[in-house]
Parts: sequence; C-alpha cells; structure tokens
Amino acid sequence: MFSRAFRSTPKSLRPLRTKARQFSSLDLIPDEPSGPSVKTEKVPGPKGVAASKEIDTFQDPRTHVIVPNYEQSSGNYLVDADGNVLLDVFAQISSIALGYNVPALLELAKTDEFAKAAMNRPALGSFPPVQWAEWLKTGLLTVQPKGLDQLITTLCGSSANETAFKCSFMAYRQRERGGPDVPFTKEEMDSCMDNHTPGAPQLSVLSFRSGFHGRLFGSLSATRSKAIHKVDIPAFDWPAAPFPELNYPLEEHVKENEAEEKRCLEEYEKILIESKSTRPVAAVIIEPILSEGGDRHASNNYFRQLRLIAKKHGAFFIVDEVQTGVGATGTFWAHEKWGLKEGEEPDFVTFSKKMQAAGVFHKKETRPNAPYRNYNTWMGDPIRALQAREMLKLIKSHDLVSHTASTGLNLASSFKSLFSSGAAQGKIMNFRGEGDGTYLAWDMASPALRDTFVGKMRNNGVQIGGCGDQTVRLRPMLTFGERHAEVLVGTVERVLKEL
Amino acid sequence: MFSRAFRSTPKSLRPLRTKARQFSSLDLIPDEPSGPSVKTEKVPGPKGVAASKEIDTFQDPRTHVIVPNYEQSSGNYLVDADGNVLLDVFAQISSIALGYNVPALLELAKTDEFAKAAMNRPALGSFPPVQWAEWLKTGLLTVQPKGLDQLITTLCGSSANETAFKCSFMAYRQRERGGPDVPFTKEEMDSCMDNHTPGAPQLSVLSFRSGFHGRLFGSLSATRSKAIHKVDIPAFDWPAAPFPELNYPLEEHVKENEAEEKRCLEEYEKILIESKSTRPVAAVIIEPILSEGGDRHASNNYFRQLRLIAKKHGAFFIVDEVQTGVGATGTFWAHEKWGLKEGEEPDFVTFSKKMQAAGVFHKKETRPNAPYRNYNTWMGDPIRALQAREMLKLIKSHDLVSHTASTGLNLASSFKSLFSSGAAQGKIMNFRGEGDGTYLAWDMASPALRDTFVGKMRNNGVQIGGCGDQTVRLRPMLTFGERHAEVLVGTVERVLKEL
Repeated sequence: MFSRAFRSTPKSLRPLRTKARQFSSLDLIPDEPSGPSVKTEKVPGPKGVAASKEIDTFQDPRTHVIVPNYEQSSGNYLVDADGNVLLDVFAQISSIALGYNVPALLELAKTDEFAKAAMNRPALGSFPPVQWAEWLKTGLLTVQPKGLDQLITTLCGSSANETAFKCSFMAYRQRERGGPDVPFTKEEMDSCMDNHTPGAPQLSVLSFRSGFHGRLFGSLSATRSKAIHKVDIPAFDWPAAPFPELNYPLEEHVKENEAEEKRCLEEYEKILIESKSTRPVAAVIIEPILSEGGDRHASNNYFRQLRLIAKKHGAFFIVDEVQTGVGATGTFWAHEKWGLKEGEEPDFVTFSKKMQAAGVFHKKETRPNAPYRNYNTWMGDPIRALQAREMLKLIKSHDLVSHTASTGLNLASSFKSLFSSGAAQGKIMNFRGEGDGTYLAWDMASPALRDTFVGKMRNNGVQIGGCGDQTVRLRPMLTFGERHAEVLVGTVERVLKEL
Repeated sequence: MFSRAFRSTPKSLRPLRTKARQFSSLDLIPDEPSGPSVKTEKVPGPKGVAASKEIDTFQDPRTHVIVPNYEQSSGNYLVDADGNVLLDVFAQISSIALGYNVPALLELAKTDEFAKAAMNRPALGSFPPVQWAEWLKTGLLTVQPKGLDQLITTLCGSSANETAFKCSFMAYRQRERGGPDVPFTKEEMDSCMDNHTPGAPQLSVLSFRSGFHGRLFGSLSATRSKAIHKVDIPAFDWPAAPFPELNYPLEEHVKENEAEEKRCLEEYEKILIESKSTRPVAAVIIEPILSEGGDRHASNNYFRQLRLIAKKHGAFFIVDEVQTGVGATGTFWAHEKWGLKEGEEPDFVTFSKKMQAAGVFHKKETRPNAPYRNYNTWMGDPIRALQAREMLKLIKSHDLVSHTASTGLNLASSFKSLFSSGAAQGKIMNFRGEGDGTYLAWDMASPALRDTFVGKMRNNGVQIGGCGDQTVRLRPMLTFGERHAEVLVGTVERVLKEL
C-alpha cells in the first residue's frame, strides 16, 4: 500500500526542444493530480467490488475492471469507487481524447446550445438542426481526410463500418448495373425481400486475420480477432487475408519483413481474384495498426500496395480508424503516413472512440443513387458533433498531435532502455510503435504473465490495457506528457521487478 | 399563407371525465404555442431550402423534410428555419416522448451530474460509473417488462435487436451443447474464425413480412418493410412468415380476420418446423404493431399464439418495442395487452426511440456463459439513461400513459366521425388503432395521394408522417392532448377538402 507520486525520471526521457514540448496537461486541466494514489490493498477495493455486485443483479459484471467515480476523476487520472487515483493509459479502451473533467468541455456541456441539443435529439436524416452545416464545417469536417469531403454520421464505430460496407455494396452493384440511373430490376426488388440473389447479392467484404471492426453482424463477419467474439454467431461467408507477421523492431528485420509482406500481398491478391467467381469482394477493410488483434504493424509500402491492389480489382478500400484516429499515432489519421498519392486516397475512412462522434468520411461518388438507401432514425447525435468540435479546437490550439508525436518518441526511448535491462529479460519482447506517437505496445512472455502484469500495474496505480493474446498496449490521452510518462515508466519498472 | 391558430373543434372530441384528462401539456411546457403558424407559402420555405442546400455539400439531403430550429421549438410544436410553427405529430419518427425544450429536461441537462456524465463517457462494460446501479434502478429498470429483470444497454434500436439476436444464438447453441459449462470444441473455435460452421452456425432469425427491425446487417436481414431498404445489401438466408392481412375495423371483420390469422399461424409453424433441417430458427422477432411496414395490427390472441408456438419449437421470442414502447399505445409496453401468462413472457424486449436510451430487457438465463461474448466499447450511454430516468419520472407523475390512452380514444372517435363524412370518401380507408392510445393510422387511396396529403398538412401547419406504401401514421408525443387534437383534426378536415 502506498500513496505518493512516482518521480523516478528515467534518464532516457530527455525533453525534445520543440514548440510542442511546451504543452502541459495542467494548461487544460489545472487540478490534475500530480500522481497516483492507491489506498486499498488491491484495486478494485471493497467498494468497487460491492458496486459490481450490485450491478450483477441486472447486468453482467464479469468484464468489469474498476467502478470509477467519474465526478472525482481529472485529466489523465481516474478515481475509483474506493478513492484510489489511477494514472489511466487505457482511457476507456482508447476513447477519451483529452482527459476526465476537462474544464473547457464541462463548460461546453453547460451551454444552452449543448443542453438543447441533448434534449431535442433530431432524426438527422429528415430534420437536421438549422446549425448542422455550421457545426460540422467548423468541427468534424475540418479534419476530413484528404480527398474525402462527404460525411455520414453514425452512433458508433461498428455502425460506421457497416455504413461503409453498405455504401460499398450499393456502389459496387451500381457500377455492375451500368450507373446510377439504371433502375433496379423487378427480380432484384422482389428477391431482396426474401434475402435472396440477385437482390441480396453474394458479395463480400475482405478483412484481415487479427483485424477488429466491430461486433454487429456485418462488422463481426469482418472481425478476426478472437474466437470468443465470434463463436455461435452466424456470419457471412466473407474471406480473410493474412496480415503480415513481422519481426520487431521493424528496422532490424527489414529484409525478412519485406518478404513476409510480399507473401501476404500475393495471398491477398489471390483471394481478390478467386473471389470473383464466388463472392466478389466489394470492399476491403483494414486498420492502420491492428489494435484489438494485438497492435500489429506493417510498413507504409504494404498499406499502399493493399490500396492499389484493391483498386486494381474493383474493390472499395475502407480504412478503419476507429481506434487509430484522432492523433494518438502522432498524425491526426494514422493512414496519413502511408503517403498515398492524389487519386489513391481510401474510399472510406471510419472513426469513433476518441472523436466521441462516429461516422464515415467518403467521396461523393459513393453517395447512394436514391434517398433512404442509407438511413435510420438518428443517424448520429448532434451533441457528440458539438463535443468533437470543441475537442478538435483544443487539439489544434494546443498542438496536441505534435505533442503526442514527441511524447511518444521520448516514451519509446525510455521503454527501449528499460526493456533492454535485466528486469525485462524473458518477460518482455517485441516492443513496437516507435514513431507512432504514444501508440506503443509490447508482448509479454505468456498470456498469464500479461494478465498478472496488468493487475499489478493497477494495484500500483496505473490502469493499463491489454490486447491480442499477450500484448500490453498503451492508449494514453493526447494530454499525456512528461509528468505522466515518468509515473508510467517508473511503475512498469517496479512491477517488472515484482514479476 | 396564413398565421393563426386553428380552433375548429370537431363535435366528436368530447372530453372524457377521467383523472387523466386533467393533464395539459402546459403543465410541463408552459410556453408551448397555442397553435401552428405558417409564414411561408410552402414548408420548407426559402431558408429551409437553403439550409438543406448547404448540407448537400457534405451530406445527402434528399431525405430532408424540414430543417428545424430546435432552440425555438416548444412542446408539441416544431419551429423551422423560416420561423414556421408546426404541430408535430411525427415527433422525429416517433422518438420524442414529451416535447421540445421541456423545462424539466433542460434543467436536468444543466446539472453537474449530466454534464460530467456527458463529458466522461465510460466504456460501460468494463468501467461503469459508481452511480450506474442507482441510475438504472431508479430509471430504466422501473419499467422492466414483467419477467425480464436483466438489461443490456445499447446505443440504438438496431443494435438492441442485434444484441437480442446474438444472445439468442448463444443461448440456443448452449442448449444444444448441453449447458453453460460444456466447453466449445476446438473445431468450433477454429471454424468461427473463418465464418464457417460449426463455429458460425447455420441458425436463423424468423421475422414477418412488412416487419422492420433496423438496417444493420443482421437487423436488415430480419427487416421486410421495403425493397429500397434491402436491395444490393447481402443478407442472411433467414425465413419470413406472413403477417395477417386483416380487414379494418377489426371488430367488424372478426370471422375472416380469425381465419387469416389462423392461416398465418399455420404457415409460421410450418416454417419453424421446416427450418429445423436447414437453418433452425433460434429466435422469432415481432413488433406488436408493424409500424414502418404500415401500422398493421393483429389480435392479442394471434400474438399469444406466436409466442407459444415459438416456445414449442425451441425458438426464443423477441418483442421489438423500439417504436411501440414508452406509452404511446396506451400501455407502457404494447405487448402488455396480449395477456401473456406467467412463464409465457417474451424472452427479450427491445427498446429505443422515445426512451432515448436503447437496450434489451431479458432473463438471466440468456446471459452468455462467458464474459466478453456480449461486449463493445460503449455499451450504451449514461446520459441517455439519465434522460430516460427523468422522462419516466414525469411520465409517471403526470400519468401520461393513461392520458394518452384516453386522448387516443377521443381522437379516434373524432377521426371516425370525420372519415365517415363525404370529404373523406374515396380518399381514406382502413382507419385503425382505436384502443391503442394515439397510435392511430389510416390508408389513403394511393401512395401519391398520401404524399400529397402529408405535404399539404405541412403547408397547413402540421408535421405528420407516413409509413408503408400509402399509410398515414400518427406518432404524437405523450403530452399531446385535447388542444392539439383540435388542431390536428381540424387541419386534416381542411386538407381533405383541398384534395
């Protein structure tokens, strides 16, 4: 048991002399704690356990980690039911951009504009508020990926991906049909009501082994992370291509990694070709870093080739930035790094999580040819668009993407130094993500060791997350900086010694 | 062009002398306008048209009806971009329970509790707020349907239905497997990653012709409303049973309606039996009134039989109350009227829309046998649970379900009287919904006439909605009362004369 701030600055955390370095989370969150404070022997403590037990009377609590007191949380620090103060580098599964109780956001929430938007929720597709264009043009549309000036808003990442799937299927069939003005046949209109071809076509979405795209029926068919997510659920017979299994650090294994990527690209193209005679691939979906599947990286060239090969075979290309988007990788969108040329942009970029708003950026050519083909009651939520607008303003005015890029470089350097020490030997491997902001990860020797590590980190005041089978992933907020890095690295170091 | 309140009280709008009659929307919304006011020649006017055009630069505006100014709207009255004041009996596709800018709800939105919940959005499955049990126990759980004490929250109706599907599939396979403790086989775990059997089983959800359950890939496979919703989208090969095509008014066609229901029940059972050898039906999903499909009713006995036959053949029974729930039919849940006995309750009841929160009520026996099988990042949104709690308090304290039941009876009586007059002859038929609160509907002689009618109603100050091919549906809020009914019936009368 302890209750103090950790101040063991690793030598390798040398501050970079850049403008972005000057940001401190205290600029945005003046009352952020200076460090964690754990009061109970274990986390969760007795009050957290009791809270989960009460929830158990009506809802499954087996996935609970802690039961937070959000009202007392601040910035990068999450307070739990027992009053423990934890540095949170998991951030609600990577969905908090700036921190808890950021004063500027609480101010927004108290405005008349926000309150009225919250309590007068529109059916956006038919009754959009008179401020809708302004809210998006000064908000979400300011971060539209290059070449994608159309935006369909949704409520979550899964439905953003499924919306991109639907748009892809409609545009694919429209192309086959001969254009937007060629009418549907009576046979198509009749057969689709029975879920049969030709109206419900045998088309597919190609995804990648270990990819995660959501857990609704379409998105789950494209998800290939873990069997427990999929077993017993009917799925579309859609193809999966291998994702390169690279050796880390990437820069030390260039040659064999190139060969692995080449092998995977060939296999991918083979599937695209072979599918044409069975279930043609209307769309390919990929994450820039396979996140839930274990933080798996590939080269920019690999992703460029994926995109070009999809185009060659007439498949739309969807980049799922639900987890990678909004700056954590050191660029606003992770796919910016790929260096796609004009005309090679993705057809769709989906987002959610840290943006709080969710949706699909796309091109006008994939707008369905008739109204009501892409439609539902809410089609997003204006308050999340307002929240995103405010967060984007703060991200820009504080240059938080650059800040995260440089924080990430320093953090990677600290971890590399720590992980090359004796304390990490045989326990930690495949450290990765250097150059991708704070989107860092490493594997541990076994799934059990990973779980033990994550539990001990929590007991030592740091909420950290896992992914894949035995990976630890960092997903801090964009306000995470040097003072949090010190705590994080110091705690990892201490816990490694305990293992 | 005109700008006045309509005050032509139809004789048939006789107030009932009940306690519930005493409610007036002014109790909750003191500044609600006394009537519509249309300032532009057509609705939308020039400002509304311009607003849609601006949205068109980034988003499809072809489904826009009007562009409202929500900040100026009040109670049952929606103000548009041109300052037109419309009585709104469509209520954002049936998703506004109490009205626009209800002071008590705006007050809630301005509380610290709400603001902090809005800006600290949790991953509910792993980090539920310490108040979560209290918020639900004093809110959503107070309206749990009989026998269903478990609640999974979601973000929308489609995902609520898909969650019920997933729970059904998991519970169905668990029963086949021999119980919750029988482990998955290696073959199941491996094959599900390829979307193949046995891991991704060939099971189905049975739905009904004209039913609507959402537009994600699983829910769309169960939706059978309109071809334009389904064409070009791959679908699961799931069966559809006929829904009775009854003659209205129901009480005048008892015998032939009974025969039609019997025919449909037989066909339904036949499909359940025949599917066993191909794609066994794990779940049946039904709306108590088929709403998007054209407000189609059937008898309580029919629904009871549906439920019992599903049970007989081992299929779970899902009641989709996304549109019918929350009081508009004169009971809190529409399926309460069916008179299901103890032990015959539905397995799942889904909700969204007027509740603003969305989710699935179910029984503990359909909790998945392992954690993370039903899981996603947000799993609902606490602020919508808070909003639902406040609305439920107001609904109860003002007895708004009884109010809606009696308002609906009076309104039905007025319409029956009006529709038996010469003005309606050859234009209006199949008036229905009497006894189902304000959930009233009628058909018009053709789809074109329906669309003309809806447009003219709008130009005359009433926002009214269609469904099915040529149906007009009423979906007023629960605060709709006598003074709104006068405007509505008077406007219908005048527009009918213009047709």
